[in-house]
Amino acid sequence: MTMIDASLVSQENDARSAELKRDYEALGEQLDRRGIAIEEIKNKVAAYGVAIPSWGVGTGGTRFARFPGKGEPRHIFDKLEDCAVIQQLTRATPRVSLHIPWDKADPASLKDKAASLGLGFDAMNSNTFQDQDNQSHSYKFGSLTHTDAATRRQAIDHNLECIEIGKAIGSEALTIWIGDGANFPGQTHFIRQFERYLESTKTIYSALPDDWKLFTEHKIFEPAFYSTVVQDWGTNYLIAQELGDKAYCLVDLGHHAPNVNIEMIVARLIQFGKLGGFHFNDSKYGDDDLDTGSIDPYRLFLVFNELVDAETRNVSGFDPAHMLDQSHNVTDPIESLMISAMEVQRAYAQAFLVDRQALEGHQESNDALMATTTLKRAFRTDVEPILAMARAEKNGAIDPVSAYRTSGYRAAVAKTRPEVSGAGGGIV
Amino acid sequence: MTMIDASLVSQENDARSAELKRDYEALGEQLDRRGIAIEEIKNKVAAYGVAIPSWGVGTGGTRFARFPGKGEPRHIFDKLEDCAVIQQLTRATPRVSLHIPWDKADPASLKDKAASLGLGFDAMNSNTFQDQDNQSHSYKFGSLTHTDAATRRQAIDHNLECIEIGKAIGSEALTIWIGDGANFPGQTHFIRQFERYLESTKTIYSALPDDWKLFTEHKIFEPAFYSTVVQDWGTNYLIAQELGDKAYCLVDLGHHAPNVNIEMIVARLIQFGKLGGFHFNDSKYGDDDLDTGSIDPYRLFLVFNELVDAETRNVSGFDPAHMLDQSHNVTDPIESLMISAMEVQRAYAQAFLVDRQALEGHQESNDALMATTTLKRAFRTDVEPILAMARAEKNGAIDPVSAYRTSGYRAAVAKTRPEVSGAGGGIV
Amino acid sequence: MTMIDASLVSQENDARSAELKRDYEALGEQLDRRGIAIEEIKNKVAAYGVAIPSWGVGTGGTRFARFPGKGEPRHIFDKLEDCAVIQQLTRATPRVSLHIPWDKADPASLKDKAASLGLGFDAMNSNTFQDQDNQSHSYKFGSLTHTDAATRRQAIDHNLECIEIGKAIGSEALTIWIGDGANFPGQTHFIRQFERYLESTKTIYSALPDDWKLFTEHKIFEPAFYSTVVQDWGTNYLIAQELGDKAYCLVDLGHHAPNVNIEMIVARLIQFGKLGGFHFNDSKYGDDDLDTGSIDPYRLFLVFNELVDAETRNVSGFDPAHMLDQSHNVTDPIESLMISAMEVQRAYAQAFLVDRQALEGHQESNDALMATTTLKRAFRTDVEPILAMARAEKNGAIDPVSAYRTSGYRAAVAKTRPEVSGAGGGIV
Amino acid sequence: MTMIDASLVSQENDARSAELKRDYEALGEQLDRRGIAIEEIKNKVAAYGVAIPSWGVGTGGTRFARFPGKGEPRHIFDKLEDCAVIQQLTRATPRVSLHIPWDKADPASLKDKAASLGLGFDAMNSNTFQDQDNQSHSYKFGSLTHTDAATRRQAIDHNLECIEIGKAIGSEALTIWIGDGANFPGQTHFIRQFERYLESTKTIYSALPDDWKLFTEHKIFEPAFYSTVVQDWGTNYLIAQELGDKAYCLVDLGHHAPNVNIEMIVARLIQFGKLGGFHFNDSKYGDDDLDTGSIDPYRLFLVFNELVDAETRNVSGFDPAHMLDQSHNVTDPIESLMISAMEVQRAYAQAFLVDRQALEGHQESNDALMATTTLKRAFRTDVEPILAMARAEKNGAIDPVSAYRTSGYRAAVAKTRPEVSGAGGGIV
Repeated sequence: MTMIDASLVSQENDARSAELKRDYEALGEQLDRRGIAIEEIKNKVAAYGVAIPSWGVGTGGTRFARFPGKGEPRHIFDKLEDCAVIQQLTRATPRVSLHIPWDKADPASLKDKAASLGLGFDAMNSNTFQDQDNQSHSYKFGSLTHTDAATRRQAIDHNLECIEIGKAIGSEALTIWIGDGANFPGQTHFIRQFERYLESTKTIYSALPDDWKLFTEHKIFEPAFYSTVVQDWGTNYLIAQELGDKAYCLVDLGHHAPNVNIEMIVARLIQFGKLGGFHFNDSKYGDDDLDTGSIDPYRLFLVFNELVDAETRNVSGFDPAHMLDQSHNVTDPIESLMISAMEVQRAYAQAFLVDRQALEGHQESNDALMATTTLKRAFRTDVEPILAMARAEKNGAIDPVSAYRTSGYRAAVAKTRPEVSGAGGGIV
Repeated sequence: MTMIDASLVSQENDARSAELKRDYEALGEQLDRRGIAIEEIKNKVAAYGVAIPSWGVGTGGTRFARFPGKGEPRHIFDKLEDCAVIQQLTRATPRVSLHIPWDKADPASLKDKAASLGLGFDAMNSNTFQDQDNQSHSYKFGSLTHTDAATRRQAIDHNLECIEIGKAIGSEALTIWIGDGANFPGQTHFIRQFERYLESTKTIYSALPDDWKLFTEHKIFEPAFYSTVVQDWGTNYLIAQELGDKAYCLVDLGHHAPNVNIEMIVARLIQFGKLGGFHFNDSKYGDDDLDTGSIDPYRLFLVFNELVDAETRNVSGFDPAHMLDQSHNVTDPIESLMISAMEVQRAYAQAFLVDRQALEGHQESNDALMATTTLKRAFRTDVEPILAMARAEKNGAIDPVSAYRTSGYRAAVAKTRPEVSGAGGGIV
Repeated sequence: MTMIDASLVSQENDARSAELKRDYEALGEQLDRRGIAIEEIKNKVAAYGVAIPSWGVGTGGTRFARFPGKGEPRHIFDKLEDCAVIQQLTRATPRVSLHIPWDKADPASLKDKAASLGLGFDAMNSNTFQDQDNQSHSYKFGSLTHTDAATRRQAIDHNLECIEIGKAIGSEALTIWIGDGANFPGQTHFIRQFERYLESTKTIYSALPDDWKLFTEHKIFEPAFYSTVVQDWGTNYLIAQELGDKAYCLVDLGHHAPNVNIEMIVARLIQFGKLGGFHFNDSKYGDDDLDTGSIDPYRLFLVFNELVDAETRNVSGFDPAHMLDQSHNVTDPIESLMISAMEVQRAYAQAFLVDRQALEGHQESNDALMATTTLKRAFRTDVEPILAMARAEKNGAIDPVSAYRTSGYRAAVAKTRPEVSGAGGGIV
Repeated sequence: MTMIDASLVSQENDARSAELKRDYEALGEQLDRRGIAIEEIKNKVAAYGVAIPSWGVGTGGTRFARFPGKGEPRHIFDKLEDCAVIQQLTRATPRVSLHIPWDKADPASLKDKAASLGLGFDAMNSNTFQDQDNQSHSYKFGSLTHTDAATRRQAIDHNLECIEIGKAIGSEALTIWIGDGANFPGQTHFIRQFERYLESTKTIYSALPDDWKLFTEHKIFEPAFYSTVVQDWGTNYLIAQELGDKAYCLVDLGHHAPNVNIEMIVARLIQFGKLGGFHFNDSKYGDDDLDTGSIDPYRLFLVFNELVDAETRNVSGFDPAHMLDQSHNVTDPIESLMISAMEVQRAYAQAFLVDRQALEGHQESNDALMATTTLKRAFRTDVEPILAMARAEKNGAIDPVSAYRTSGYRAAVAKTRPEVSGAGGGIV
C-alpha cells in the first residue's frame, strides 16, 4: 500500500529522467576519472536508511508558541501514514521511532499498520520529562534522579514498559533522554544526583533483552538551565561504561556547547566502542532542532567522514543507529523530513568520495593543505544525481518535494484531520 | 490593604531586629572608615524600585513541559495580589508591568485594584509572538515584519490598543518584543524584513503620547533559530535612532550571544542617550530567564556599576526603567521575585560603595590592579544589613521569604485558585 | 615579469585542459537548463579580485610558538614577490595591502616593484598594537584611546604617516584596527575611553584625502580579554556615523561572539550604507584566522549571498573592499592564500547561481523550505570548472597548487632567504 | 631569609591591626550566630596553599605583542625570588612549579635557593609546544602525537628528563599539556592521533616514580584551532583511565567551551577518583588567563564549594593540587599573583561557611530557592578579615599590595635586571 498514487510518482519521474540520466552520466564520467565507480556509491546510498521520529511529523514549537499547520496527525496511526509518505518518496526512511506515552497503542495494531505501510520500528523513546495526567509522582524536580525513591521507581517502571512495548513491536533499542538537572547552583548535589541516575539506569539495563541496546543521550542545557545530569559525552561515556556492553552513547548534533568539535567526539566514541547512534538535526545557537544540514552542511559531512572512515576500516562492532530529530516550526514536517533524509544521504555519499588512501598519505606527511583539500574535493562534488538515481530505481521520487506537493496529500488529510488551535501558554 | 497580616510581619521583624541593628552598626562603622555614610546608601536603596512583570508570578516552563505549582494566579487580579505580596514584604517592587492580551481587563477595575494594593503600572507589553483565538491573521511567519500587509496592520493595531489601555491605567511606556525572524537561511530577506519592521514601528511610534517612551528589545535567538529581526543592540540602536527621541533600547540580560560584555553595551547606550531600561534575569546558556544574580552576581554588579556611574555623573536624560523578567520553573514565583528584587537592590547598593574618585585615578594612571580591586572591594561588602534596614523601616520584612512562608499565603490562595494541570504538549 | 616560468604553467594547464573543457561544458549544459549562462558567471569570476595582506605570506603563530617554514620572506620586497606568485597562478589577487611599519620602505621602490610584478596596492594598515624600538610612548595601556594625550598623539601621527605612504603608492584607504581595551573590570572607563577613540579617529579622518575611505574594524576580544573598545558592529557603526561619509565598517569574519549571524550584520551594514569591506578567514573558536572557507564554507556562501544580492540590486554606493586576513601556521602561506582566494571566488560564483526571482517569491509567500532549498541548490553546485576556466583564460593555472609545487618556487627562494629560528617566548 | 624587610611588613601591619581586630571580631560574632567558629575557618585558610608557576612572575603577552615591565626576572633564580615575595606577604603560596626547559638549572642550586627562600617545588611542567634551539625534530606538527616516531620519542624523552629533574628537587608530579591538534579538518586522523598520544604517555607513565602523580590537562583550543588532542575532560578522563592509578585529570578553569558548567566537571572527576588538580585563572572569552576571580568570582566559589564538600565528606584519595596559571599582561605579576592567591583563599573560606547540613536538607526536599540561598549567603559574607588575620598571624602582610608597593621591591630589582625590549613579531 502506498500513501501517494504510484502513477503520480511515475509521471513526475518521467518528466525528469532524461535530465537525470544525463547528469548521472556526466558525474559518473567525472568520478571515473577520480577512480570512483558511481554505481558503488549509488548502491551505498540505496542501502542507507535513517529513522523518522514519530513526533517529527507534527508541527513543533517553542515555549512561546506553536503554530500548527493543516492536517496535523491526530495519533500514531496518522503519524505512521505521514512517515510512509516520506519513505515512499525518498526510500531513505524505512523505520519509525516511537515515543511513549505519546504513541501508546495496541502493539498488534501498531505492527499491522506499520507492516501495511512497509515500515519498521526503530528505538523506543521514554518520556519522563513531562507529567502525564493521573501520574502519581511529578517530574518537576527530576525523574530517574529524583531524590524521592518512589518517583524514581515510577520513572524506571515507565522505561520498563517502553521495553515491553518495544519487544512486542520488534524494536531493538531503548533511548533514554531525561530533563533532570537544576536551575540553580546548589539545587542538587551533583554526585548524589548522578549516583541516583546510575542506580536507576542500572535497574533498567538489567531488564534489557540480550539483543537490545540502551542508548543514553547527553545535552548541555534545556529544560534545565544551570546543570543537566548527562551534560556531555564525558558523562555519557561514564554511563555507558558503568552499565555494560549493551549501553551506548547517543549523539544529538544540537546538544553541545558552542564551538565544540562534534566530529572528534564521534571519533572518540568510535575508538572506545561506545558510539550508539545519532539524532540528526542542525543548530545555530542551542538545541534549535533545525533541519539537518540546513545551517552547516560541512559539519554534517565531517561527521559522516568519521562514520565512513570507520565503516571502511571495518571497525569491530561499529553499527550506529541513525535517526532524524528535528522541530519543524515553520515548514510542512513531511517536506522537512524528506529534505533532511536526503541531506543525510548526501553527506554519506560525499564521505565515500573521499580518497582515503591519499588522505592518509597527507596525514602521515603532515600535508595539512592537501589533506583538507582532499575532504573539500569530496564535499563540493554535487552528488544529487546519485541520490536521485537511487531513489528513482527504488520507485521513489526524483524530486520528492515536487511529487509531494503535486499529490495534494496535505490537503487531502486535512479533510479528515481536524484543525488544531495554535495554543500558546503564558510561558515566557 | 495588605495581603499579609501586618502584625505577622512585625512579629517576624521583632525577632530579628536586634541582630540586624548590631550588623547594621558594625557595617556602618566599617563604611564610615571608608568615608561612606551608611544612611545615604540606605536612603538610595529605600528609594529604589524594580517593576514586576505580571506574567512572572505564574510558574513558567519550557517547550518540553510546564510544572505548575499550587495556587497559580487565574487572571490579572490574582496576579496583582501576588505582586502586592512581593511589594509588601520587600518594599522594592512598587509597579507591575502588564502583558496584553494576557492581562486584558476593564482599565478602571485594573486601576482600582492596583491602587487598593498600593501598586502602580509600569510599561505595557504587547504580544505578537503568539496567535490568539479568533485572530484573523497568524503570526507564524512574523508580525510587525510579516510580508503580508494585513498581518502587519493587525500587529500594529494590537500595539496601538496596548497604548490605549496603558493610557487608561497610567502607564507611560510601551515595550515591543517580537519573535519575528527566520529558521532557515534564505527564509527572509534581511533588508526588506527590517524595512518592514521600521515601517511598522514608525506607525506605532507616531501614536505614542508625548510623555511616553517606546522600548524595543533585542534578542539573539528564540523563538527564531536562524535569525531574529532585532538580534542585538546594534540593530536596536538603529531602530531607536530611526524612530526618534522617545524611542529607547531595552536590555534584557539574557538576550546576548555567549561571552558578550553586557556592561559595555550598557555604557554605549548611556553614552548615546538610548538606554531605555532593563529586563533583569540571569542566564548560563541562553535566554534561560533564571533568577537575577543567581548565576553571575558580579556581572549584575558590573551593570549597576555603569548605572550608578551615570547617576553619579548626572548624565542628562538618564532614567532607565528597571524590571525583572524571569521564568520561575522550579520555585514559588513570589519567592523568586522577592529574592531577585533584593539582588537588584544589592547590586545597586554595592555600586554606591565604589570609591569613584579613587577608581578614576587608577583608570587615569592605568593602575589596572587597583582599579579592579576598587570594584571588588565594593562588591564583596555584605550590604544585607542595609537592604534589611531599608525594608524594616518601610514596614517590609527583614527576611521576606521567612515572613512569606510563615504567612501561609500560598496555601491560602490555593484554596480558591483551582489546581492547574501540568499540561505538556508534543513539542520536542 | 612572472615569478614562475610561464611555460611551466602552460604545460601544467595543457595536461588538464581537455578534462576541464569537458567538465565546463557539462556544467554549462546543466546551468543552461537552469536558465544560467555559464559565460556570464565566468566573466564575473574573472573580474573579481581579493587583496592579499603583505603579512599573510609569512608563517604565522600563536602566543605559544611560531614555526617558520623554509624561505620566509625577509621584507616587503620578498613579500611582494610571493604575492605575485599567488596572483600569477590564481589571477584572483591583484592587490596587496601593506602594514606599517612592518612594510616601511621607499615608496617609489615599492611602486616600481609592484608595477613590475603586475600588482597594485590595497588599503594601508596602521599598527598601534605593538611597541616599536625607539618609540617614545608605549601602547601597553592603549594607543588611540590611551589616557595620556601624548601617547594618543603618537598613535594619531602614525596613522597620518600611513596615509602619506599610501598616497605615495596609490592606496585609497586606511584600515584602523587597535588592540585597545581592558583585561580587568574597572581598568578603563568605557565612556571616556570611547570618547578618546572618537576624538583620535576624527583627527585622522580630517586628514583623509577626499577620495579615500577610512575602515574601522571591530573585534570582540584579543589582545584585550575583558573588553575591547570597538567590540562589535554596533560600536563600529557608531564610529562610522560619527566620523562621516568616508568612514565605513570593516567586517573580519573571525571577530564576532560565538553563534553570531554574520551575514545579517553584513545585510544591516549594506542597508545603512556603511559596509566598508571584509577581512576574510574562517574560525571555529575565536579569531582563529584559519583559511577562508576551511571550517564553514556555507557561512562564507551566505555572506556572499548578501553581497551578490546587493550587487544585483545595484545598491547605491555599494563597493566593499575584499581582503584575505589569515594566519598560516601549518601550511605554506602561498598555498593557503591561493586556495583561500579561490574559496572566495567559489562563494561569489555560487551566489550568482541563486535564482533570485524564485527566492524572492518564496520569501514573499513564506515558503521557508523552498527558499532555503533555492540557496542550497546554488551552494551545492560544483563551480570548480568555472573558476578553473577563468584562471586558464587569464594565463593562470588550472590547478595552482600543483603548478606551484612543480615550480619549486619555495625551495628556490629558500636558497637566498635565510632560515628563521622558531623563536618562542615565555608567553604562556 | 626574606626578600622584603620584615620590619617594613610589621610597620604596615601595625597601622592596620586595630581595624582588622575590630572587623574580625564583628565577623566572628556574626558567624557565631550562624553556628560557625571563625577560628576554625581561619585555621583552614592558614593551612591552605596554592602553587605559583615560575613563568607567572614574568609579564605575559599575546600573539600580537608583549609589553614587559621593569625588573623582569632574568632566570629561574630571579623568579624564585619574586615567588618568595609573594609567599612572604601572602603566606598562601609555599610552592613553585617549574617549567622545563625554561627553568633548567643545576638541581642542587635550585633546591638550595628555594630552601633559602622557604619555598618548595610543586609539579614539573614539560614543554613540547615550542621548538628549542638545537632541537632535532620540530613540534610544528605535533609532539607526543606526531606521525614521526623519532619526534614522539624526543618529546617522550623530554618528559622523562622533567621527571628526573623533579626527582632531584623534590617534586612529586608531572603535568603534561601539549599543543598538538590540527588547524584543518582532515589534517590529522583523530583516532590514530589519539592512539599515538596514549602510546607516548604510557611510556612516560611507566617511568613515573611510585609516589608521583601524572597530571594531564585538557584544552578546547589554542594553539590548535580546529581540534586539540585532549580537547575536554571526557578525553582527559579516558587518558587517566587508560594510564592507571597515578594518572589524574588537571582542570584549567579557562580551557573549556563557552557556557560549560565547570563545577559539575569537578564533581564528576571527584566522583570517579580522577581529579588531579587545578590551574586557576579566570576568563571571559577563551583561555584569557586573567587573574583568578577577576571576572566571575561566584564561579570560583562554586568550584570550591565542590572541593570543600568533598573535603568535608572525607572522600577517599581526594587530594587535588592547586596552582595559579595566569598571564599578566597589564599588571605587575607579583601583585596579580598575590591578589589571585588571596582570591583562591577567599573562595575556600567562603565555601566553609556553607551550612552543608541545611543545604543537604534543601536538596533532599527540592527547595531550590533555599538551597541556592544557602550558597549565596556563604558567598556574600565578606571573609577578608579572616584572610587578613591568617596572614598577619603568620607574619604576612595584612594588605600585601600596600606592603609590596611600600617596599619598592620592583624598583630595586630593576636596577640589576636589565630592561627587556617589547619585542613583537609579525604574528597576526
